[in-house]
Amino acid sequence: MHIREPRNRSLLRAAWAGCMALFMLLALAGPAASSPTQRARYIFLFIGDGMGMNLRRTAEIYQAALHPAWQPALWMNALPAQGLTTTQDASSSTTDSAAAATAIASGQKTRSGVIGMDSQAAAPLTSLAEIAHARGMRVGIITNVPINHATPAAFYAHVPSRTQYDDIGQSLARSGFEYFAGGAFLQSAGPSGNETGLTALAQAAGYTIVEDRAALLALQPGSGKVLALAAAVQDGGALTYAIDRAPGGLSLLDYTRKGIELLDNPDGFLLVAEGGKIDWAAHANDAATALREVLDLDSAVREAVAFYYRHPEETLIVVTSDHDTGGLGLFLEGGAFQPYITRLAAQSVSLYAFGQRMDGFRETYPGASFSDAQGLIEASFGPSMVNSRNQAVLENAFALSMQREGLHADEETGASDPLGVELSTRLAYKAGILWNTGSHTSLPVQTSALGAGSVLFNGFYDNTEIFSKIVLAAGF
Amino acid sequence: MHIREPRNRSLLRAAWAGCMALFMLLALAGPAASSPTQRARYIFLFIGDGMGMNLRRTAEIYQAALHPAWQPALWMNALPAQGLTTTQDASSSTTDSAAAATAIASGQKTRSGVIGMDSQAAAPLTSLAEIAHARGMRVGIITNVPINHATPAAFYAHVPSRTQYDDIGQSLARSGFEYFAGGAFLQSAGPSGNETGLTALAQAAGYTIVEDRAALLALQPGSGKVLALAAAVQDGGALTYAIDRAPGGLSLLDYTRKGIELLDNPDGFLLVAEGGKIDWAAHANDAATALREVLDLDSAVREAVAFYYRHPEETLIVVTSDHDTGGLGLFLEGGAFQPYITRLAAQSVSLYAFGQRMDGFRETYPGASFSDAQGLIEASFGPSMVNSRNQAVLENAFALSMQREGLHADEETGASDPLGVELSTRLAYKAGILWNTGSHTSLPVQTSALGAGSVLFNGFYDNTEIFSKIVLAAGF
Repeated sequence: MHIREPRNRSLLRAAWAGCMALFMLLALAGPAASSPTQRARYIFLFIGDGMGMNLRRTAEIYQAALHPAWQPALWMNALPAQGLTTTQDASSSTTDSAAAATAIASGQKTRSGVIGMDSQAAAPLTSLAEIAHARGMRVGIITNVPINHATPAAFYAHVPSRTQYDDIGQSLARSGFEYFAGGAFLQSAGPSGNETGLTALAQAAGYTIVEDRAALLALQPGSGKVLALAAAVQDGGALTYAIDRAPGGLSLLDYTRKGIELLDNPDGFLLVAEGGKIDWAAHANDAATALREVLDLDSAVREAVAFYYRHPEETLIVVTSDHDTGGLGLFLEGGAFQPYITRLAAQSVSLYAFGQRMDGFRETYPGASFSDAQGLIEASFGPSMVNSRNQAVLENAFALSMQREGLHADEETGASDPLGVELSTRLAYKAGILWNTGSHTSLPVQTSALGAGSVLFNGFYDNTEIFSKIVLAAGF
Repeated sequence: MHIREPRNRSLLRAAWAGCMALFMLLALAGPAASSPTQRARYIFLFIGDGMGMNLRRTAEIYQAALHPAWQPALWMNALPAQGLTTTQDASSSTTDSAAAATAIASGQKTRSGVIGMDSQAAAPLTSLAEIAHARGMRVGIITNVPINHATPAAFYAHVPSRTQYDDIGQSLARSGFEYFAGGAFLQSAGPSGNETGLTALAQAAGYTIVEDRAALLALQPGSGKVLALAAAVQDGGALTYAIDRAPGGLSLLDYTRKGIELLDNPDGFLLVAEGGKIDWAAHANDAATALREVLDLDSAVREAVAFYYRHPEETLIVVTSDHDTGGLGLFLEGGAFQPYITRLAAQSVSLYAFGQRMDGFRETYPGASFSDAQGLIEASFGPSMVNSRNQAVLENAFALSMQREGLHADEETGASDPLGVELSTRLAYKAGILWNTGSHTSLPVQTSALGAGSVLFNGFYDNTEIFSKIVLAAGF
């Protein structure tokens, strides 16, 4: 039984079927990129403060040397998109963290020292975090230095000077962002005349405050707005350096894991995480400590990659830096990396913590001689640091160290104990590392990405474009 | 007057027209990448010897500062694909040029010093140039250092040691490659017992020999196999540094232009061009000279980009480096780059050429005092080099310089005249530049690409993958 259709109708059908077949074929043959890409809904932005690409690469070599059978790459270095990013700011060839974080957060160049405002410090600039929040995404800001320090501040504050810690802390309380996690507040007393302090101000604005790791880990999704601080801080209100951290100590990884847990929701999130102490250790030219900080940030990146595997179509991970600090150089003539770079592992404390040890030593043994300090030196930098060639120099540094009165330099350079500086410099040199400077440098940094829109992050571009590329990937 | 068509025919037409419109729309809307990519038929591989990414970026900043109204980017930095490339070799964390060039040319790691052979120096490795030649493409090998030096040699020779200049020169004559251009042959006398010398050997193998710029420029397509050498060489058989080059002097750009002209043919070509003196100047920590060498290589890259515009579908340009030399750091606190970096422009000669000037000065004025040398210092490094703070140091360097007997160190470091070293180091420091070492470093280099298959060169990969990516892009 065959029912004959009108001829023109069957022809129309045939043509339509042909068109659809052609369309399907083209749709299937085309690369994934030609179909409308999913917008990035879960966005991770990691900023290694002072993490020059040389430091990244050296950290990778160090990690591989410590695991010769496995030789793991850094997660951040293994991401498929890799770019080079220029960093100069509106006032200086060598940017500071405030201007660089503002460039990344808001896509505009400003002057060194300015947070979230234009180069005249006149008009506020809207940050990625504010845009995401206005779009209904949850926002988290993480750091291992003070939560009102320059880099995190550029995502939620708008002030002419990075040193306006009061104002920045007030901006935090007003932001409404769902999750903040960092070290202590700097100038935590809060605005003059306001006796409640910045923490109380945040609490009054509806934030649940946690101040230790146990309280952090106990938080459950649905906790509302959270401000996680570290009651036990090390230098300048920052979390303890990874190299000094006791097992179970609070870390950037803890903050990142909990952040993902609290922020995860169908409307998406933006999580900004700063590895802030990379910069501090690099300012101090403390190689072993700086490299451990890079690895510590990388473990937070790994956590984001694990999240990506659950939502590969809608997750974007970006890892960048605000600037290079220290101009680290690695060079070894002959031989594999392994026997040289592993020497760094003999250092078991940061230069900062060594300074504290020396403070204790000086107090306990005021008349001690250099030979009395051998045990302390060995426990901190390994057994082979003193030899006949360097003994006079080290003795001189020890004498200087014994004369000083607990001086710990400024917040971003950690301790500058003369004996510690001498020992860490010599150990780094034995490992093939020399530093060029104790300051920032003008060199480009490395930016890496994975996931939705990550291909945008290949190439050679300015740090202001990190903003625009994320805007594009997120469909803001 | 309307002629009515059969109804089914008009329907068929409408359907066909609809399909075609849909097809056209899809074809136009789809990205170019979704059509089958053309294989790279015209391949340029530029290798800046010792050109670390810091040197590339600093050269760009220097060039921009010298042209404040225009601020041109480096061509190589503006290429759309940018990657980071690791460089360690089979014997050393810090590669030499022989092993790195072998890795790039043949995709295999070998030991420092080995040319075109495996890490046991037992088996030859086939190079990109040999593969291309076997496929009927023309091959050109260009350098501004000796044509039998390590980097060019890795594309046509297979010897256990880079110092086997005789054997490398013989390999050149046997290669059959269409175009060689470089400095003089090292050990040009040729193999022992062979009185003809390497140049005559190449001539006997059918090469037309040209030894000056006029003869080079007079060559016409269809000249057959060409070996262009420089009869007038500077240090160690190399072309004159760009900074020392007289107007109309033979350059890498001349070699590249003529190479394109001679090699261009429908079956395609591979042109490998080395900027070899970047490394030499970086070994000497001669910043002004090294940066000019980078700009000189970039002008050759520009020539390749001009060729790309004529054959955009079938041209691939890759720019990379074998390793970083010197670990250059650029850092300035405050202020724009311009007023600092432009100070380098006061240096008008290479450190090598300054050493020659000092040789002449010493010979002419054997009893001269430091003040007698003021004119020479000003003519070479500008008017502001001597002041009350550094005069004692410079006088001491001058005294050392007057005592020596024309010593010019080794071929890759140029002159080490003590006064010149002191002056160039101080000038570089005033420009914001410090060097970390006079040797190679272990740090990654920057690889850039444009054209067919260039997207492969994004990312973070080993130098052996430059080989495999070019193989893939070329469809070898």
